[in-house]
Amino acid sequence: MKKYAFGIDIGGTTVKVGLFDREGNVLDKWEVPTVTKGGPDAILPNVAASIKNKMQEKGISKDEVEGAGAGSPGAVTADGHLVDAVNIGWKEIYLSDELEKLLEFPVKSSNDANVAAFGEMWKGAGKGCADMVMVTLGTGVGGGIIVNGQILSGATGGGGEIGHLHINDDETDSCNCGQKGCLEQYGSATGIVRLANRRLAQDDKPSVLRDEIISAKTVFDAVKAGDEVAIEIAESFGRYLGKGLGMIASVVNPEVIVIGGGVSKAGEVLIKYIEPNFRKYAFPPCSHAKITLAELGNDAGIYGAAGLILNRDE
Amino acid sequence: MKKYAFGIDIGGTTVKVGLFDREGNVLDKWEVPTVTKGGPDAILPNVAASIKNKMQEKGISKDEVEGAGAGSPGAVTADGHLVDAVNIGWKEIYLSDELEKLLEFPVKSSNDANVAAFGEMWKGAGKGCADMVMVTLGTGVGGGIIVNGQILSGATGGGGEIGHLHINDDETDSCNCGQKGCLEQYGSATGIVRLANRRLAQDDKPSVLRDEIISAKTVFDAVKAGDEVAIEIAESFGRYLGKGLGMIASVVNPEVIVIGGGVSKAGEVLIKYIEPNFRKYAFPPCSHAKITLAELGNDAGIYGAAGLILNRDE
Repeated sequence: MKKYAFGIDIGGTTVKVGLFDREGNVLDKWEVPTVTKGGPDAILPNVAASIKNKMQEKGISKDEVEGAGAGSPGAVTADGHLVDAVNIGWKEIYLSDELEKLLEFPVKSSNDANVAAFGEMWKGAGKGCADMVMVTLGTGVGGGIIVNGQILSGATGGGGEIGHLHINDDETDSCNCGQKGCLEQYGSATGIVRLANRRLAQDDKPSVLRDEIISAKTVFDAVKAGDEVAIEIAESFGRYLGKGLGMIASVVNPEVIVIGGGVSKAGEVLIKYIEPNFRKYAFPPCSHAKITLAELGNDAGIYGAAGLILNRDE
Repeated sequence: MKKYAFGIDIGGTTVKVGLFDREGNVLDKWEVPTVTKGGPDAILPNVAASIKNKMQEKGISKDEVEGAGAGSPGAVTADGHLVDAVNIGWKEIYLSDELEKLLEFPVKSSNDANVAAFGEMWKGAGKGCADMVMVTLGTGVGGGIIVNGQILSGATGGGGEIGHLHINDDETDSCNCGQKGCLEQYGSATGIVRLANRRLAQDDKPSVLRDEIISAKTVFDAVKAGDEVAIEIAESFGRYLGKGLGMIASVVNPEVIVIGGGVSKAGEVLIKYIEPNFRKYAFPPCSHAKITLAELGNDAGIYGAAGLILNRDE
């Protein structure tokens, strides 16, 4: 095992890059802007150049680098084939091969949410666990599943895309994916706003939320302040999310479920509403999973990416 | 790789054993009665003796045997720790270690349903696929999930126990597991009888089923004969099972879903009722999985068990 590795997290606005030692300590990190027009050729050479510059700056030779890992949006199969990444306009590339050509050392790649889950397992809230589910509550609901220490990529790179698990037969609104009743419609920041607006429209019960711009943050701030309507909204959120996570646990039997993404900034209060519903819906032998908050924040991606290369089998 | 391997499938009434060549062709198979009282000590020495006898009979030396695989009821973790197997009264043993001591060659073990899934992936309906879900429709609903060519065992050996996925909020009857609305309550032979009795009690619409002892077989025979009430029952079965499989596919994104167990003897007609519902409920990028019938029947377990040892990494 060589001394250094790089972790690359390709996002819609910036590419985050981290320099790690072989134990997985981050030694330096920086960002490169994401150019969404022009495909991979408009981004990857810049990323490679920034890594080469960093190596020169630090006096690191190619022989001292174990390799790099990369997470990107879109469906990525277990062999690193990126099928489609709508939000950065990429299609059909072998990201790791492309980066290997530019960097001249080994590269492993996977989907960004799966990589973040891998990071949390390696160095964050799932440390020491080989079987983990991470759910990312942001604008949408994303996720990543780790099975026996490995990313569950799935046949077409859709493994762990748990935001579109069907959890409610009675939904009348459509999800962005075209289905109705997806986990994302209740567990995301957008979903919480939808649940809040639905609840507020039911009656005139007083609530601080009636004078605010509704967001996941204002809802959970109001919950913490004891606002009864906000608490009802949180109960509804917890019922749906706990049920969805219970279903997932019944299938993959994780040791820990890690909750990340912007919504998770609300803190431990989330778990209070999720956990009883999770225990209720999960198959009893799978219902003992620990539910906990993510620990690595926005760095989960670079940690997981570096982890991909530092923990690879071959 | 040595010339031979054994596959052992421990069931509630018999232990099936197969002798395989290294390519996975079955050369011989036989059964040993299962003694359910007395724990592993009442069974394993008999199984080991029968294997040693077979080796003597065929003139096979220990040096020519790669090892054996074993599937058993109960929750078994990825490292072969059998936690609990209620129907044969076993608790807390390392089955592979115990068998290794008796057989004096390497043994790998896992849960029987997971092993059967592995068999179907290796030599049956999932041949050539690395990502597969098998659902076994018998008295209950069991299952096994293969991720990137490996069994998904889960943290406590509950991985792939998909019969207890929650799929229906409106169920009033309890499942054997204590929950309400589990996949098993609709997809098993018992579940089909329950759906049939519910439908028949609704009104007096004529049906051949009114003069028969209701079973999964009589229901699907009536479907094939064009019985309208039976067709409604099959539609209901297909709605629940298709929905449940759609949910599972949204989480693990398999390439193929294999349907096995006693109920699958009804044949292709099952798929006709399951498939449209599956496509409706699965997350669109995960909805293209092929749905197909199991091919190995009762031999899936011995194939999968032999496959465990012949395909192991180390």
